[in-house]
Amino acid sequence: MSEVADYIDINKEQFKHELFDFLRIPSISTDSEYKNEVIDAANFLLDKLNNLDLDRAEVFETNGNPIVYGELITDESKPTVLVYGHYDVQPPDPMDLWETPPFDPKVRDGDIYARGASDDKGQSFTHVKALEAYQKTGTDFPVNIKFIFEGEEEIGSPNLVPFIEEHKDLLECDMVLISDTAMFAEDTPSITYGLRGLAYMEINVQGPNRDLHSGVYGGAVDNPANVLCEIIAQLKDEDGVIQIDGFYDDVVELTEDDREAYSKLPFDEEEYKEKLGLKALKGEKGYNTLERTSARPTLDVNGMWSGYQGEGAKTVLPAKAGAKVSMRLVPDQDPKKIAKLFKEHVESIAPDTVTVEVNEHHGGHPAITDLTFYGLQAAADAFEAVYDKEPFFTREGGSIPIVADFQKILGAQSILMGFGLNSDAIHSPNEKFALKDFYRGIHTSAKFFELLPDYS
Amino acid sequence: MSEVADYIDINKEQFKHELFDFLRIPSISTDSEYKNEVIDAANFLLDKLNNLDLDRAEVFETNGNPIVYGELITDESKPTVLVYGHYDVQPPDPMDLWETPPFDPKVRDGDIYARGASDDKGQSFTHVKALEAYQKTGTDFPVNIKFIFEGEEEIGSPNLVPFIEEHKDLLECDMVLISDTAMFAEDTPSITYGLRGLAYMEINVQGPNRDLHSGVYGGAVDNPANVLCEIIAQLKDEDGVIQIDGFYDDVVELTEDDREAYSKLPFDEEEYKEKLGLKALKGEKGYNTLERTSARPTLDVNGMWSGYQGEGAKTVLPAKAGAKVSMRLVPDQDPKKIAKLFKEHVESIAPDTVTVEVNEHHGGHPAITDLTFYGLQAAADAFEAVYDKEPFFTREGGSIPIVADFQKILGAQSILMGFGLNSDAIHSPNEKFALKDFYRGIHTSAKFFELLPDYS
Repeated sequence: MSEVADYIDINKEQFKHELFDFLRIPSISTDSEYKNEVIDAANFLLDKLNNLDLDRAEVFETNGNPIVYGELITDESKPTVLVYGHYDVQPPDPMDLWETPPFDPKVRDGDIYARGASDDKGQSFTHVKALEAYQKTGTDFPVNIKFIFEGEEEIGSPNLVPFIEEHKDLLECDMVLISDTAMFAEDTPSITYGLRGLAYMEINVQGPNRDLHSGVYGGAVDNPANVLCEIIAQLKDEDGVIQIDGFYDDVVELTEDDREAYSKLPFDEEEYKEKLGLKALKGEKGYNTLERTSARPTLDVNGMWSGYQGEGAKTVLPAKAGAKVSMRLVPDQDPKKIAKLFKEHVESIAPDTVTVEVNEHHGGHPAITDLTFYGLQAAADAFEAVYDKEPFFTREGGSIPIVADFQKILGAQSILMGFGLNSDAIHSPNEKFALKDFYRGIHTSAKFFELLPDYS
Repeated sequence: MSEVADYIDINKEQFKHELFDFLRIPSISTDSEYKNEVIDAANFLLDKLNNLDLDRAEVFETNGNPIVYGELITDESKPTVLVYGHYDVQPPDPMDLWETPPFDPKVRDGDIYARGASDDKGQSFTHVKALEAYQKTGTDFPVNIKFIFEGEEEIGSPNLVPFIEEHKDLLECDMVLISDTAMFAEDTPSITYGLRGLAYMEINVQGPNRDLHSGVYGGAVDNPANVLCEIIAQLKDEDGVIQIDGFYDDVVELTEDDREAYSKLPFDEEEYKEKLGLKALKGEKGYNTLERTSARPTLDVNGMWSGYQGEGAKTVLPAKAGAKVSMRLVPDQDPKKIAKLFKEHVESIAPDTVTVEVNEHHGGHPAITDLTFYGLQAAADAFEAVYDKEPFFTREGGSIPIVADFQKILGAQSILMGFGLNSDAIHSPNEKFALKDFYRGIHTSAKFFELLPDYS
């Protein structure tokens, strides 16, 4: 096996060179002007898969951006790993805040700066290079591997779930391997075994049929902005407990073991507050910060608007007010059910002095991987072998809806083997990915494939 | 006296012609690009005063736009009326909604369409023409008259109060006559004897030092938008009663007589709701709609903002949230005191998880004219003589802060002799003023001057 590791070390420059080519393609899925570049990125990956000795490599057309697929079946009795990644990226705006252009990758202080460096080109490319290391050194690949790379992750993966449903046999696997998350801290590997789900709602309150003079009508006509505030204020009590009937019905409570695992995570609350510029934190009573941000459901206003927002004063009684409100969900909450409960609750507390409309944006299921799953153990040991540190098992507060979809459609658990950092500025200017973690990622991936058969 | 009335009738076309010249000047005080046009409007008025036989007519420079002043002292023993008006206008935007250009006055269906037609060029010009009718017919003018026209009413009259304070002797008078309000309805004259005051506040809530990912931080970091909603929701109870300590301390309660007067006003609540597109009204418990909109204080959100307001969904936990909140005040509430109470109250209920800043925008005192004041009686009889209908005495919900300032500085009560209608669309596209009310306004003004000495 040292041959594989040696190959990775020897070819670092070449891997970087290839990743830079990948990063130079502005595959921005949110902007239809970059349609061709998105396809270029898919073809780049197809080309890389074709350079390997796979049983199959091809591009599947969808109603949106193509899906790149590849597979190598070495031995039906061995575990099959489905590697998922995405080749599309977030738009780079605001452009003027980038120190170097987003699609001209540069290394500064050991970090690769480029849009997509961490999310997700750099991270997902590690597994392609790990397989290459086996094949170029003539080492038998220890497992079966399938690759699926989509180009619509940043726009909510509208065509991925239909594709998985249509190609259940093709995608059959024992686990899904995803590198699209962050480590707990620098040099502190961690495996994310839980993700929150999401229900995202919009409330629109219509009062009078036009903006009114607040002097002439104020006092008699109910104000949609005040009403909206009253509705939102009623959604949580003073202990941070969400007041929607039935909201907590399906929440799996933390066990003593869970809480003990949380208590072992290195976390400095004072530093956390200081970095955010806050004097005090606030969350659901009875839980600590790490539990609140990953194992408990939440409700947050994401945006809000009404009336006059300019300088100075305008004495308007606004006709409309609106808010975007989202809830992070935990197992076993169902986003559709929660959206329905939210809508019913808001409608039930809305006064008849206004018209309240509640609409649903996209949602996603929460997911949790069984901590005793052998794939997770293999991943942990692979991390330890490369990083020389036992990884933490953590739950993240964010959502990767596809994890729940893989579970539901393919019956496969996901291993979230993140090599990024929370400070990578994904979705922001100056996105970066540590070069050393790109290389350690390839090593960890190769080690994981090596160890996996022994754990199954 | 029929000579004066005849002169007005004979010269209608000429008066209209002159008013149109006045309306053609885009004297927009809110836009410094129109600085010269604002001065043109002042000079237009000076010219009109110079064409009369006054003791004095001149323009006073201020730190902002000039004040046009004129006076005619006929007999020291007679009452002195100070006519106040403003020659500046609101900006015409949105331009594309005007059926004819805002500064090219046109008559359609008996209405003059132009910016400033009702607010306040058309209304205030009536008194200049009334005096002309006396002088051109050789009729002794029955009272002493002073004119003061400002050019900054639409930007909050920043230089008027200092001017009045500096020129107390010059402006000494027995009453102020202002035509800058609306009649109760078409052909339904009314005299406004009460105006609400205003305290206008802005609340800014700062949470974390940057926008956060709602998945990563949601649950642990208090959300400034949720906090703002909670603060605003606590400002009124379910009965619409404002919860700020001491808020009602100085409110003069309605007497039985007041309420009886209100009950006599023609008011159709069903029609009111229908015109506003509302199923139900809402206001302070224990008061009816007309009382709520004019004799009771209110609290309204005028604008509100936070986080993501665009299309679709963005999972942000916003760093900031803000709202503009104003309160209409009634006698004897003091806007400075109310602003202080508001600030203290909001700060007292703000949690320590965020930083809350409360600032004050401009305010204004409420005002009420004694119903037994002889000037008011003369005005009522003048209205009745011209409109053949006894006018209503009403209180308006809006604010004209200068009324309280005249009271305070000069000790003079104001007579709000409005000839406009609430449907005049002042501050909106297609502002209009009924031509017949321009003429009836001149007649009513002339009649008022005739009757006044007999009532004093």
